[in-house]
Amino acid sequence: MERTNCRPLTPVSFLERSARVFPERTAVVSQETRLTYREFLERARRMAAGLAAIGINPGDRVAFLAMNGEPLLTAHFGVPMSGAVLVAMNTRLARSEILYILRDAEASALVVDPSLLPNLPELRGQCPELRTVIAAGSDQDGSGADLSYSDLLAGGTDRNSAYKIGDENALISLNYTSGTTGHLKGVMYTHRGSYLNALGTVIEVELTGATRYLWTLPMFHCNGWCYPWAVTAAAGTHVCLERPIPPDVFRIIETEGITHLCAAPTVLIDLAHYAASNQITLSAKLTIMTGGAAPAPQVIRNVEAIGAKVIHLYGLTETYGPSTLCQWQPEWDTLPFEEQAALKARQGVADLMVEQRVVREDMTGVEPNGQEIGELVIRGNGVMKGYYRDSEATESAFRGGWFHTGDLAALHPDGYVEVKDRAKDIIISGGENVSTLEVERVIYTHPAVLEVAVVSSPHERFGEVPKAFVVLKPNVDLTVETVYAHCRERLAGFKCPRRIEFVDELPKTSTGKIRKYVLRSREWKTPGGTDHGAADGRTI
Amino acid sequence: MERTNCRPLTPVSFLERSARVFPERTAVVSQETRLTYREFLERARRMAAGLAAIGINPGDRVAFLAMNGEPLLTAHFGVPMSGAVLVAMNTRLARSEILYILRDAEASALVVDPSLLPNLPELRGQCPELRTVIAAGSDQDGSGADLSYSDLLAGGTDRNSAYKIGDENALISLNYTSGTTGHLKGVMYTHRGSYLNALGTVIEVELTGATRYLWTLPMFHCNGWCYPWAVTAAAGTHVCLERPIPPDVFRIIETEGITHLCAAPTVLIDLAHYAASNQITLSAKLTIMTGGAAPAPQVIRNVEAIGAKVIHLYGLTETYGPSTLCQWQPEWDTLPFEEQAALKARQGVADLMVEQRVVREDMTGVEPNGQEIGELVIRGNGVMKGYYRDSEATESAFRGGWFHTGDLAALHPDGYVEVKDRAKDIIISGGENVSTLEVERVIYTHPAVLEVAVVSSPHERFGEVPKAFVVLKPNVDLTVETVYAHCRERLAGFKCPRRIEFVDELPKTSTGKIRKYVLRSREWKTPGGTDHGAADGRTI
Repeated sequence: MERTNCRPLTPVSFLERSARVFPERTAVVSQETRLTYREFLERARRMAAGLAAIGINPGDRVAFLAMNGEPLLTAHFGVPMSGAVLVAMNTRLARSEILYILRDAEASALVVDPSLLPNLPELRGQCPELRTVIAAGSDQDGSGADLSYSDLLAGGTDRNSAYKIGDENALISLNYTSGTTGHLKGVMYTHRGSYLNALGTVIEVELTGATRYLWTLPMFHCNGWCYPWAVTAAAGTHVCLERPIPPDVFRIIETEGITHLCAAPTVLIDLAHYAASNQITLSAKLTIMTGGAAPAPQVIRNVEAIGAKVIHLYGLTETYGPSTLCQWQPEWDTLPFEEQAALKARQGVADLMVEQRVVREDMTGVEPNGQEIGELVIRGNGVMKGYYRDSEATESAFRGGWFHTGDLAALHPDGYVEVKDRAKDIIISGGENVSTLEVERVIYTHPAVLEVAVVSSPHERFGEVPKAFVVLKPNVDLTVETVYAHCRERLAGFKCPRRIEFVDELPKTSTGKIRKYVLRSREWKTPGGTDHGAADGRTI
Repeated sequence: MERTNCRPLTPVSFLERSARVFPERTAVVSQETRLTYREFLERARRMAAGLAAIGINPGDRVAFLAMNGEPLLTAHFGVPMSGAVLVAMNTRLARSEILYILRDAEASALVVDPSLLPNLPELRGQCPELRTVIAAGSDQDGSGADLSYSDLLAGGTDRNSAYKIGDENALISLNYTSGTTGHLKGVMYTHRGSYLNALGTVIEVELTGATRYLWTLPMFHCNGWCYPWAVTAAAGTHVCLERPIPPDVFRIIETEGITHLCAAPTVLIDLAHYAASNQITLSAKLTIMTGGAAPAPQVIRNVEAIGAKVIHLYGLTETYGPSTLCQWQPEWDTLPFEEQAALKARQGVADLMVEQRVVREDMTGVEPNGQEIGELVIRGNGVMKGYYRDSEATESAFRGGWFHTGDLAALHPDGYVEVKDRAKDIIISGGENVSTLEVERVIYTHPAVLEVAVVSSPHERFGEVPKAFVVLKPNVDLTVETVYAHCRERLAGFKCPRRIEFVDELPKTSTGKIRKYVLRSREWKTPGGTDHGAADGRTI
């Protein structure tokens, strides 16, 4: 496809161009590491060459289990430069989930921070396809890894001719989500899709060469909503951060002159609370993109009160992160703050890369009256290629020619969408998707459990958390702590039911289906049950 | 190609989206006409439907001969929405050139301002393929046209299902240039190329929804450098202007709050001169993109002195307009004004959509020392599909896998390109390309002419103009006025030699080739010959 008048669309080209035009500009700040664009490109090329040197071939999957930092950021260019496919895993997943992903993706290599995944040798025994494990950092001794990240880079010489991407519809990454279906599936991103979504983002949130972007959003979430590519396209500066702890965030905003950051509403709550407690107001313009869950109008107000501008985005892993934005209308500028926040709490309109509709079951559109509820469906270059090796799930999600989000929304007369309810089996807790089906499946594996239903329970900090209503088998003795521990062994912490309640029976329909909405509405009136979260050390 | 996860890239989608998101925002200001985005989309749809109603089929060519205004702007969406191909012709071309284009493109329809093309019936007799002529305006009486523009729009009802663009590599427009080869050729633009170049432009010159763009650049130049599409993608406002007459330009800048405009250096000279004479300084930020010819550093300084920011662009019809920009480096901010202007007078670096090199004849790169001269070559999604129905010329231009600009340039150590000389047979006069071969060919058709050579001659206003050195046949009597009139009948005014000199012989090489550079260097030392331009009424 490479011709005089046609180059396959790939975000790799963004780094090549920015390094050519702004070689001495700071591209990456990550702890003690500071890379110019020239160095960033060189490092990505060394990573690509290093991967080739350990036998990675085009099309192979290279997995990462790492916090935000230079290695994972570089991987967004270095891995595709080798022709391989990046699999950035959520660091909060349970060991068994990590194992599932490595096996499903048949990853050939894994770059891992050993502290996130103890007992590597055992894991390797369970992953026959995993040929090479690379320990993040400069030392792999005793970790069970084959080499260190430094070794990997050193093994690759700066090759003159990098791998040429021949097909813009080839895979650039897999992003695993249990999203709307209850089991982990690899969402396929292409070079073309990543390129276009990154360019759309540059335009929509107005990234420029003066942008200094703070990595409060994990890069393992939909490839950081495509921002590794978008910020690089604009030749802005990436400032990495492992955890969005408020004092760190505010310190770096000042010292690094941050102009943009992305964060889930839970992070915004923390930031606003900290700022209010410490009389912090921002000294320069800061744009915050929020999404991953619906922010309450009050949350938007509190954040804007400290001087930030909030852009509300909506999207899913299946839509390369954000696909919808609450596009601000200048005539709203004169409205009272409260009305502005309410308008901004709506999900909004399709971005440059997609079209969206709100449809009834028969795919006809709902009335644009802000009342009728339908399913939000999306199509266009912002929709994933499909689920990895699961054409059945892909076809189901793409039925009728549109991607079905599973989110229930109303369409306002001005064309703005407002998500009213999610597909009833999904909980978004602190920006992370939790499939209630997946949690139930795990609880059912406990021999003492007869029946279980997991629903959403309100939570001041995370918006909502999973709550399990459990019916025990007769004459067994079990504590909620045991149930929780059973889950924690098998699931990411954020998926585990923070509240567990033993009940005698579950409400059912005449045909025997569990009436979850009864449990849910009761729960949202008077939340109950033990809270197990605190013990988990989960701050996000 | 239209699938759930893939939509063919087409700039038509920009108008659809902006109309959906900003229906009541002003999209177009053109004389008394003001259209919101909703109305702009509706009008484009009516144009498409009107074209279908007069029998235009997908793939047909629809030609325009019109000044900047709502009809030609709408045509950038309405024509492709009908599946047809837009051919926007330069209004300065001679009648015989217009005829050539209509026949070469086999245009099925022509929208024309009758004042620009008298005696339509005669022209129609010479264009058998031209089925329908539409007179711009609301009245076609006595013009020889079949219907008026108003009739065309009225004939089309707002169709529910517009033509679906199935192939993003299909043609969206033809732009005729005699550019680097000496005869008019149709440069093919695709939907994909137009889409990507427009998005690149939005990012590079930072167009946003607050952009108010003044149409000082003719839309028939490379489809207005893709700005009809770029400004619409950003949901900015188009303000049309037929001629960039300085008092009009400055008045509209104030009344319409213009933020961006494009103009050739000649226009900048006029604007700066007028502003200096009338003590005008700008009251708000204005960004001016200049290109089409190299602006002298002094021109840039004079324009920036009135408060505008200048972005210097370089490109050709074959590269969708600009492909290279003098990307500003923040560290230049502190340099003296004079050094800044000198840096900015360089053409610069490849934009987001292309790669560029400066090469020797064997395609190896020149040394990046600012000294060695090579040819500037370009490739990528910013390069035309090819020359219409001329695969030989396309192959020649694309030899070695790069588009050959014919421009001779040096590569500076910082990677910035500086065009030092054009392919020796091209003159850029006031932003318009003049092929000396084409002018010579016309002069040779005069029976009294024995030999002719056309070279560049310096001109205070237009930078350079064509000068003809003519050797007459023995014993003929001819005046320079007769030669000029002979040219003017057959060529656009800007192509005609403003200076003509009769000589006894032309300098030649031992093999008999005319040594044009001898003539050229003599001319640039002591320009001579009669100036015919003033009588022509040419102001731009």
